[in-house]
Amino acid sequence: MRIDIITVLPELLTSPFEASILKRAIEKGLVEIHLHNLRDYATNNYKQVDDYQFGGGAGMVMMVEPIDKCISGLKAERDYDEVIYMTPDGKTLNQSMANELSLKGNLIILCGHYKGVDQRVRDMLVTREISIGDYVLSGGELAAAIVCDAVIRLLPGVLNDETSALTDTFQDNLLAPPVYTRPAEYKGLEVPKILLSGNLPKIEKWREEQALERTRKRRPDLLE
Amino acid sequence: MRIDIITVLPELLTSPFEASILKRAIEKGLVEIHLHNLRDYATNNYKQVDDYQFGGGAGMVMMVEPIDKCISGLKAERDYDEVIYMTPDGKTLNQSMANELSLKGNLIILCGHYKGVDQRVRDMLVTREISIGDYVLSGGELAAAIVCDAVIRLLPGVLNDETSALTDTFQDNLLAPPVYTRPAEYKGLEVPKILLSGNLPKIEKWREEQALERTRKRRPDLLE
Repeated sequence: MRIDIITVLPELLTSPFEASILKRAIEKGLVEIHLHNLRDYATNNYKQVDDYQFGGGAGMVMMVEPIDKCISGLKAERDYDEVIYMTPDGKTLNQSMANELSLKGNLIILCGHYKGVDQRVRDMLVTREISIGDYVLSGGELAAAIVCDAVIRLLPGVLNDETSALTDTFQDNLLAPPVYTRPAEYKGLEVPKILLSGNLPKIEKWREEQALERTRKRRPDLLE
Repeated sequence: MRIDIITVLPELLTSPFEASILKRAIEKGLVEIHLHNLRDYATNNYKQVDDYQFGGGAGMVMMVEPIDKCISGLKAERDYDEVIYMTPDGKTLNQSMANELSLKGNLIILCGHYKGVDQRVRDMLVTREISIGDYVLSGGELAAAIVCDAVIRLLPGVLNDETSALTDTFQDNLLAPPVYTRPAEYKGLEVPKILLSGNLPKIEKWREEQALERTRKRRPDLLE
């Protein structure tokens, strides 16, 4: 998999790709991440990539030309499955969308900033608009990192123990059951006895019940 | 505002706080961010902070003792409004939760990793559990950065133009209308004439209609 991220703030995205699972996936050659500074595609001498919005109002708008130049250049080199625009009014990311994206080959992710991109970018160039949730961020960079993390950890070979991703919350529309580790007693709080019993079928049944109960209590919408 | 982030991967979080609006907010003294490496609170010589889960199964669990030690140490120094645990089965972050959190003074954010934290951490120490969406990440670090970004940009003085945050998507349960900037025509695509008219009341009306139409089409749930 190859992901090209277009941003006005590439420096914001360095550390997430240099740590943990994303770093390991890159080192293993399972994914390539390329950060593109939109300013390198500015068409005037001021490296301008945003401008005031037509019709007035607070907040700058990202211009169509530099974005078109950057995306067209990438597309001339290889085919892309999707040109994704990170925006709070996009389709909300969920686990099944992450699963679906993990099967793609080449992705472009465009990070919005300020008031967002000129609508013509969305009309002409973008094939999919994704939001990571119903809140506004200062830019699309962290949202892009979230999409990368959610998707890349699903690529075969990225997680050390692949069964771990399969038992995640959401993979079966259930929240995960409570988990415990040593010590068996801490400040008077004990681990549920069943987990110390060694009776695997009973433990499995307890976990299923707990997952169902937690989902019913916290997220009944997932059971509908 | 002061935010203490407890993590096993502080290095993952460096660049988001050294760029853009978060950097500016820190430099202006509007927020303090303190990263705490959980390994510094490990209670054995191997700096161990996670262990196999009781009852068996894939994935490690973060131990209660180091987390308790870290949080207790912080609480001994000052009062905290919330001890937040980032977890996919928490309450889903939205704009009104971000607004609410932006009024707090001191927050602790605990980043989950692997299979999450020992349930006793949640029972004993955590006051609020937050998810940023219905997808699983390799850890809570990027989720914590998302909460920080969503909250900090709302602090008075952080955004250059405060009216900008007020016209954001979600602040009035409407998606934002389309935005355009120069040039007025690009590859045959023209900016809607109304935006070039200079007639501000008509432009305002058009934007309201567009916001409503976009919300009705993309997110009818927000209008309910």
